[in-house]
Amino acid sequence: MPGPLIKDMFITPIAITDPPLLNAAGLHAPYALRTIVELITDDGISGISEIPGNSSIDEALELSRDLLMGKDVFQLNEIRQVLTQYFGTEKASQRGDAPWDQRKLVHIFSAVEVACLDIIGKVTSRPVVDLLGGKMRDRVPFAAYLFYKYEGAGGELAFGTDPAATGWAAARQAAALDPVGIVAQAKAMCQEYGFQSVKLKGGVFEPRTEVDTMFALHDAFGPGIPLRVDPNAVWEVETAIKYGREMQHILEYLEDPVRGQENMAKVRKELNIPFATNMCTTSFEDIPRSIQLGSEDIILSDHHFWGGLRSSITLSGICETFGRGLSMHSNSHLGISLAAMVHLGAALPAVPYALDTHYPWQSDEVIVGGRIKFEEGAVSVPTGPGLGVELDREALEVLHRQYLKCGLKKRDDEIEMQKKVPGWKFKAVRW
Amino acid sequence: MPGPLIKDMFITPIAITDPPLLNAAGLHAPYALRTIVELITDDGISGISEIPGNSSIDEALELSRDLLMGKDVFQLNEIRQVLTQYFGTEKASQRGDAPWDQRKLVHIFSAVEVACLDIIGKVTSRPVVDLLGGKMRDRVPFAAYLFYKYEGAGGELAFGTDPAATGWAAARQAAALDPVGIVAQAKAMCQEYGFQSVKLKGGVFEPRTEVDTMFALHDAFGPGIPLRVDPNAVWEVETAIKYGREMQHILEYLEDPVRGQENMAKVRKELNIPFATNMCTTSFEDIPRSIQLGSEDIILSDHHFWGGLRSSITLSGICETFGRGLSMHSNSHLGISLAAMVHLGAALPAVPYALDTHYPWQSDEVIVGGRIKFEEGAVSVPTGPGLGVELDREALEVLHRQYLKCGLKKRDDEIEMQKKVPGWKFKAVRW
Ligand SMILES: [Mg+2]
Ligand SMILES: [Mg+2]
Repeated sequence: MPGPLIKDMFITPIAITDPPLLNAAGLHAPYALRTIVELITDDGISGISEIPGNSSIDEALELSRDLLMGKDVFQLNEIRQVLTQYFGTEKASQRGDAPWDQRKLVHIFSAVEVACLDIIGKVTSRPVVDLLGGKMRDRVPFAAYLFYKYEGAGGELAFGTDPAATGWAAARQAAALDPVGIVAQAKAMCQEYGFQSVKLKGGVFEPRTEVDTMFALHDAFGPGIPLRVDPNAVWEVETAIKYGREMQHILEYLEDPVRGQENMAKVRKELNIPFATNMCTTSFEDIPRSIQLGSEDIILSDHHFWGGLRSSITLSGICETFGRGLSMHSNSHLGISLAAMVHLGAALPAVPYALDTHYPWQSDEVIVGGRIKFEEGAVSVPTGPGLGVELDREALEVLHRQYLKCGLKKRDDEIEMQKKVPGWKFKAVRW
Repeated sequence: MPGPLIKDMFITPIAITDPPLLNAAGLHAPYALRTIVELITDDGISGISEIPGNSSIDEALELSRDLLMGKDVFQLNEIRQVLTQYFGTEKASQRGDAPWDQRKLVHIFSAVEVACLDIIGKVTSRPVVDLLGGKMRDRVPFAAYLFYKYEGAGGELAFGTDPAATGWAAARQAAALDPVGIVAQAKAMCQEYGFQSVKLKGGVFEPRTEVDTMFALHDAFGPGIPLRVDPNAVWEVETAIKYGREMQHILEYLEDPVRGQENMAKVRKELNIPFATNMCTTSFEDIPRSIQLGSEDIILSDHHFWGGLRSSITLSGICETFGRGLSMHSNSHLGISLAAMVHLGAALPAVPYALDTHYPWQSDEVIVGGRIKFEEGAVSVPTGPGLGVELDREALEVLHRQYLKCGLKKRDDEIEMQKKVPGWKFKAVRW
């Protein structure tokens, strides 16, 4: 009883407008790269997915095409095995020091798996969440994700701004280089999206400024709003202990203050606050040592980096078994990734911490109906079959042309930063 | 988009003929109890499952009826939550000292989940294996499961034998109370079923006899056949080290030589052979301490005791993450449980050790088409929708009448043993 067989695969790199957001690795370029994958079955059914893009991922996807042709979309175990054999068993260490992940296998399998689940959902008339054991909640909560940033809207405007913009669109292009700027950003973002948790991307300025920013947020929002800060592992152990102690009473959790599981465990022992990570425990291979050391309390999963939605359910089982929490990490993304995150977030047995999302920073969209709506900071689980979102082919074409025009081939926040601060260098540990 | 809704539930206790098999807890009664669960959807689709039976499980299933009515069979996460809330969060310690498990929640959820997956398979026209990520192999290998036993066929014959029996049916009713008897049993069983791995249920006689039996099997089958022995945790630590050292070079793995994770870890350090368990690590709750101590190398899972097939996939992910092997435990069972085990075994990413099964000891069957065939010790994965096996309603009626007539309400191997050896008492640690 063979199921729908994969007959065709379309790999479309796109560039999406991204404002000049600062982080430990440098600066976001005017465009973020994503790759849209579409699988077509012999019956003409389309399944889609979205992953972080770069030319080497696109090439790897191209190489996987022959491996996928003729495969039954239900045979996800076999597809994973075939891809693993071809791309080799990657080590977690291949992810590198950057806050994003550079392993190919997990990206590619995630792209293929989500598209296959979209197809399976369509042929079985079920939303993807029902292929993951079913919905535990109708809406999935997200957090406001704040960034220090230069003035600018990104995209064609780069460091320029649109004078006609109002509301969040205006706030999004404003500079935010100090506590006051971040509080204004937070207020505008929360007013637009209704977020009820707030996260600051840190690791940008010396810690004093970032800690002051957290206190400014605490003063502005009051104790009812959970706050998080993510220095992206560039703090020294001593720095993290010192500032962690100072602000732990106002934080929901502290994310990756230091680099590596050993350092995380060391700092965690000195503080009374949950630790979260998407940098020190980033693959199943990292789990045993994480358990042994006690490097974190919460894993910020990302189905793009953990090998898809079903692997993420396994990760959730591991977290439940070992008393760890689970939430989600994000990169600049559009609605296909958001929909996949929402299906997964809805299937998790335990109520997750409000998920990270860069979505408010994007203005483009690639799905029919345009931008996904948030209510009170949450996204309703799509109820249509599969992911419940469809590719807008005109928008895809526009964003692909934008990709060709912008000339970017991979994410390099250091080079972007050097355009503003000549000679700027990424440091794995800075303060 | 609600899926098929549960409209009715049939809970049928059955008694199946079981020969007088010896084990550490005593003696198998002439009948083993199973419970057949059938869920019917509002569309009239039937989903079935089989679990180890006893009257308190049947009562708990009865209590769960109201919780299940109207539920969408795809909403397995929600069903699990509802059952967990009702039956409470059981502790692993509630499983008791017996080689079988007495927790209710995992049994009940397993019964419901497998029946729901059977329905999901039917409405999506896919075998259950495809709901678990798809088939990694077409046939699932099982091991010959040898028992010391008294003469007798079980059932109405109890300790009597059928003089007309030939082949394995004759060997099955013969006594096997020493190495020679076990070798004869092994030869007959392997000739009939083609098994290529051999396991002895130990913990019955003093260790010297059982170790001699393993050497007799080694001599009879040669080094090419993997051998295992399972003393069901009744050996002292010193006993296990002494006899483990003596026979480790002829064993594939040693199963539960001693009681408890601490003792298992202690003995395991002294031997150079993998340790397997279905007694010291029997639930997700047990896993962290198992990892910390290193109590075993292989978990013998059982979907009836680990909360269903999807939980077993999570367990498989945990085993893969922590470098443990996975295989399966069994109790006396019929074809519905066997089919579920085969679907699960076929979906496991890594080739499992040959699975345990009591199936050769049974002669009854409750599925259409009668007894499932083994080829070269393996069972082909059913290709029909769902479990791929259907309830034989006449056979079910016969086996239910057998249940009513036999008068057994729960498994108690100690009482059965006392019928042969007056005053016999179960001891958690014996030698
Ligand atoms: Mg982070
Ligand atoms: Mg055992």
